[in-house]
Amino acid sequence: MQRCARVYRLPMNAPDDVSAIRELITDSTLEPQQIVAILGKTEGNGCVNDFTRGYATLSLRNLLAEFLNKLQIEQIPLVMSGGTEGGLSPHWIVLAIVEEVEQSGSALAIGSVITRVLEPSEVGRHTQSLLVQDAVIQAMKAADIKTADDVHFVQIKCPLLTSERIASVDGDVSTSSTLKSMGLSRGASALGVALALKEIDCMSEADIGVDLSKWSSRASCSAGIELMSCEVLVMGQSSSWSGPLRIAHTVMEDAIDAQSVIKLLSQSIPDDPWPVSPGRLIATLAKAEASSSGRIRECRHTMLEDSDVSSTRHARGFVGGLISGLIGHTENFISGGAEHQGPDGGGPIAVIYSQPTGS
Amino acid sequence: MQRCARVYRLPMNAPDDVSAIRELITDSTLEPQQIVAILGKTEGNGCVNDFTRGYATLSLRNLLAEFLNKLQIEQIPLVMSGGTEGGLSPHWIVLAIVEEVEQSGSALAIGSVITRVLEPSEVGRHTQSLLVQDAVIQAMKAADIKTADDVHFVQIKCPLLTSERIASVDGDVSTSSTLKSMGLSRGASALGVALALKEIDCMSEADIGVDLSKWSSRASCSAGIELMSCEVLVMGQSSSWSGPLRIAHTVMEDAIDAQSVIKLLSQSIPDDPWPVSPGRLIATLAKAEASSSGRIRECRHTMLEDSDVSSTRHARGFVGGLISGLIGHTENFISGGAEHQGPDGGGPIAVIYSQPTGS
Amino acid sequence: MQRCARVYRLPMNAPDDVSAIRELITDSTLEPQQIVAILGKTEGNGCVNDFTRGYATLSLRNLLAEFLNKLQIEQIPLVMSGGTEGGLSPHWIVLAIVEEVEQSGSALAIGSVITRVLEPSEVGRHTQSLLVQDAVIQAMKAADIKTADDVHFVQIKCPLLTSERIASVDGDVSTSSTLKSMGLSRGASALGVALALKEIDCMSEADIGVDLSKWSSRASCSAGIELMSCEVLVMGQSSSWSGPLRIAHTVMEDAIDAQSVIKLLSQSIPDDPWPVSPGRLIATLAKAEASSSGRIRECRHTMLEDSDVSSTRHARGFVGGLISGLIGHTENFISGGAEHQGPDGGGPIAVIYSQPTGS
Amino acid sequence: MQRCARVYRLPMNAPDDVSAIRELITDSTLEPQQIVAILGKTEGNGCVNDFTRGYATLSLRNLLAEFLNKLQIEQIPLVMSGGTEGGLSPHWIVLAIVEEVEQSGSALAIGSVITRVLEPSEVGRHTQSLLVQDAVIQAMKAADIKTADDVHFVQIKCPLLTSERIASVDGDVSTSSTLKSMGLSRGASALGVALALKEIDCMSEADIGVDLSKWSSRASCSAGIELMSCEVLVMGQSSSWSGPLRIAHTVMEDAIDAQSVIKLLSQSIPDDPWPVSPGRLIATLAKAEASSSGRIRECRHTMLEDSDVSSTRHARGFVGGLISGLIGHTENFISGGAEHQGPDGGGPIAVIYSQPTGS
Repeated sequence: MQRCARVYRLPMNAPDDVSAIRELITDSTLEPQQIVAILGKTEGNGCVNDFTRGYATLSLRNLLAEFLNKLQIEQIPLVMSGGTEGGLSPHWIVLAIVEEVEQSGSALAIGSVITRVLEPSEVGRHTQSLLVQDAVIQAMKAADIKTADDVHFVQIKCPLLTSERIASVDGDVSTSSTLKSMGLSRGASALGVALALKEIDCMSEADIGVDLSKWSSRASCSAGIELMSCEVLVMGQSSSWSGPLRIAHTVMEDAIDAQSVIKLLSQSIPDDPWPVSPGRLIATLAKAEASSSGRIRECRHTMLEDSDVSSTRHARGFVGGLISGLIGHTENFISGGAEHQGPDGGGPIAVIYSQPTGS
Repeated sequence: MQRCARVYRLPMNAPDDVSAIRELITDSTLEPQQIVAILGKTEGNGCVNDFTRGYATLSLRNLLAEFLNKLQIEQIPLVMSGGTEGGLSPHWIVLAIVEEVEQSGSALAIGSVITRVLEPSEVGRHTQSLLVQDAVIQAMKAADIKTADDVHFVQIKCPLLTSERIASVDGDVSTSSTLKSMGLSRGASALGVALALKEIDCMSEADIGVDLSKWSSRASCSAGIELMSCEVLVMGQSSSWSGPLRIAHTVMEDAIDAQSVIKLLSQSIPDDPWPVSPGRLIATLAKAEASSSGRIRECRHTMLEDSDVSSTRHARGFVGGLISGLIGHTENFISGGAEHQGPDGGGPIAVIYSQPTGS
Repeated sequence: MQRCARVYRLPMNAPDDVSAIRELITDSTLEPQQIVAILGKTEGNGCVNDFTRGYATLSLRNLLAEFLNKLQIEQIPLVMSGGTEGGLSPHWIVLAIVEEVEQSGSALAIGSVITRVLEPSEVGRHTQSLLVQDAVIQAMKAADIKTADDVHFVQIKCPLLTSERIASVDGDVSTSSTLKSMGLSRGASALGVALALKEIDCMSEADIGVDLSKWSSRASCSAGIELMSCEVLVMGQSSSWSGPLRIAHTVMEDAIDAQSVIKLLSQSIPDDPWPVSPGRLIATLAKAEASSSGRIRECRHTMLEDSDVSSTRHARGFVGGLISGLIGHTENFISGGAEHQGPDGGGPIAVIYSQPTGS
Repeated sequence: MQRCARVYRLPMNAPDDVSAIRELITDSTLEPQQIVAILGKTEGNGCVNDFTRGYATLSLRNLLAEFLNKLQIEQIPLVMSGGTEGGLSPHWIVLAIVEEVEQSGSALAIGSVITRVLEPSEVGRHTQSLLVQDAVIQAMKAADIKTADDVHFVQIKCPLLTSERIASVDGDVSTSSTLKSMGLSRGASALGVALALKEIDCMSEADIGVDLSKWSSRASCSAGIELMSCEVLVMGQSSSWSGPLRIAHTVMEDAIDAQSVIKLLSQSIPDDPWPVSPGRLIATLAKAEASSSGRIRECRHTMLEDSDVSSTRHARGFVGGLISGLIGHTENFISGGAEHQGPDGGGPIAVIYSQPTGS
């Protein structure tokens, strides 16, 4: 018997709408004990005061509490990412593991680790990177993902600073701007992934948010007000796992890099040339951000100058439009703020797809 | 000798940055008398209090006043459309006409008409539709565009209501909501285009903003605070015109309809398979809007529920991302609010491209 | 023995922070069974997609479930009002009833009624007004408030329309705009209060949102996505009640009517001339809105033209600043959208204060 | 003969509406040569991409060009401050100087100086403070304001950084955040005022934006995209000036400090007890900001956590509501972002009022 990953992409009618997950359980498709992580793309602003993430998390906890005990719930990363700008659609991605008869070949493998609670003074600093580095390595081991090359996406939920938290450590923090703390926390986490996957050899605290030439091609980090630890979810390919699911990734070089996405799909799923049949594409995970140069291929953008709408909202909607057009539906997990996650202005993208038996 | 259209897409560093247009004139590329219209994609919110449109218009008028007299300036439609959400890039599109040696074949033809000033009580009502219908027919004649099928895009700038304007007619207006007046004005204009191009047989005032099954496949309407007339710019193909420029259009069926855009490019420019070489694509004009159903291909979107960012901003950024990825640059004239302009949730898109001599 | 109202104003560090209420219970200040209503001023945008209200409500329900059964919880109105613009401070107002030795005189009296669930097609229509009228009359009886003049504030939480709800009744709704539905729902509720308190003789559906000359001087209505019934909380003076708490109200004639507020305080609390000692003022409840004329005492305002920030947010912050300055703290329950709640551009304000024994 | 200041507060229907100023000139109330400064409170967001300031400035320049030559126009500070949140009303304040028969006593005196153009690398740094310090001292001399105590308000317009400007100096800037650059520029200017008025003895670059215990009680600084120099306008009392106008100032200790404002009015205008007759109060100039502690008198505020609306917008509307209620109208020049301008969370406020002859 081998482990087999199952991935369910489910609609969410509001941050507290867990009905689609409940249905999976009550109709016996899924046993609650099989759930290893739940991702949620919620409809808030994705910034500091986005309470849709906490609301969704609380709603999930209430649901899970009907079936699992407190300790079991605590071990399941609940990674909420706010922001469904443009036509992006709020949705859940439920990751579960079942046992299946052994197959030859390689399949999607999942491992997750939750770090200890961080002090506010550690957020966005070197300690956070090191904690994430360790967590990624542990999660790879747990999932029996053998090499760094076999890792295709690392989804991380990490903390941010609030005025309260800053005051609690007498201002000994990486930044006194609550909005900026989200970027530093994401960046510190991403550099931790880059260390773990040996994409960079070393880093110092001064690199965080500054040296954008250091980045991971597979890190995707979201900051949220509702937690103070880092929840690390590693997804890759492993010959120890079975089932029809596969994962592949690439890097979008900039916000309009359609060709890389098409190439990823064409190479991963050669038997179903792009545009891929909708049923094959189970989940899409990607990062988006405004390039710090203020330009996309020589043309000026205005995302960083807009004081009405934050640049992360702009970038999610814009890249979300492109990816949705190329994928063929709008339930894509596009997360904003890609500091050290892919090249400046670009970002990693991974697709989980199904491979029919025998092919 | 025949008329020959010239189209220049130029960068704009701020709403008052007319330096790129000035340079065209001072380096003798363009004579001011040749300008027949200027479009501007400015970086405001594209909604009621978007003063970037008026600021750009005033800056253009100041520039033109150095070269032309007041009467000449008044005859040039200055069509500013606010909103460069996501990575869209503020830019000017200068349309000019020169005389050239006659060629066989057909080329881009341009005609423009400015209607009389509307009363606030006429905005968003049947009278506006009829005024636009007449203007489109007149502009076709002026441009010698022979049939409705030869019209590929009609860009219209039309007025909106403000609290002041509503009060000036004692509240006898189509709506007392200033934001909603933008939609009704755009919709009334679009239905006027549909009448002129015989896409619909008839309409009544009650249809405006309500019967979305009536629409034009080539209307693109922007409402702005800075004018009270309708500025109508018709673009099409005519055998009376010469030069390398061509125009083609299609309709995006929904906000993620990548395939229609790729098909338009492939069929229009068969000698340069998609992705088309950047130099061939001179200008892209398109409409975007949130579907009133609240869904894109069965998946819920949140644009109409977002009270922080208007749905027109969401839609422009989202569709702008897709089009920019498919076109290969971000200077695309995506305009929001597509009431009666294409199907609900979709919209017309036109490309002006160059056809090398002899091909 | 007589009923005695107790009112606790408590801080809220986030929408899910119910720790101050929990503390009241665990330190035995308050028995959970004594709670008759909880108001919450939460830090969302106060508009359609303000999920802080639902998040706070869910957090309260989780807390109450530790002490009360489901039926008991359902009978407690949980009235969340979003929006703490400017310096307003998120807070809870817990209303409780205890038994006390009979006193002569009159004191704060509280009654609450929750109407049946409304159909989406009833929201913002005459039926809603009639349901609220009945509920106010029932609540007065329950609280033994003998005349309409003895009613000083009626706080109502009522539903709004979403795209989903509109679709569920095939578009048979008062408005297809989700944001506008909030105003119609508030307005319909307020007219119900005006009927119950005999401030108007009659009304028709056509008056809702239109005839602003019809209004209640004591209605305060908030619309929220998290309920489909109307929760009606009546506060007044009754000789059947005991204790140190009193309530008084006035109407602000416009958004800068400082003098009415000062007069209210001076007349209600003559023994402590304005500025009143902070300890005396237990709770302040008020409504704020942008005048539909676009003017405040002859000067233009821009709240209705701002497409970036909704007018309700502007009005709450602006009036909130004035009231906070006059009251001396920022935990004031200012609610936006005052359709038919006070004169156009103004609104009701009530203060709950303590009267020392013997005075 | 002595100089006599004249101050006109005039309505503005849009950023380009200079009709009220034009009327003053055409009806011979004012000669264009008498104008020494024009302040404008415009209806943008007051942040980085607020183009209403530039639009108003361009409209003013176009107007003035009808009457004055280029050199004359350049010497008139045009100080636009964006943001009329809440019920604040867009307006102009025109400052002019005429010659009058000498009077005994002291009257409003005005002096202005425009510094040299700053490099982007100087914005928000020590050099900016020193340039402003010099400019204040020069302006005092020009206005014959004899001591620092006689200075009651210093209004400054200073530059901000954009992505373009940051790139032009290869990132050698005080901050790479365009929004944050506004605060540092305002702060550096304010510390320059504090130096000039001897409110602080010394400062270093590290103090800017950091050591908020250093502040000026009379500085009011606005940052704008439309200039690269600092425009410094000093207002005070001088025995060398005549006429009915007077100026007085105080400091609001926090955002709800109503009592200081009432005290200022009562002491300055003892013959007309508060609420002062509207005709007496010519202009009100004040600063507002969110306290960095996250609290107002022990209660939490949410301005710094709101990623949808910037804290400067919140603070202007909130403090604007209080001041408008106390002053009695909404044409108050409330400017946001009070770094080093008054105590943290508070700010300076000045009133220009008229003193009838003989009193």
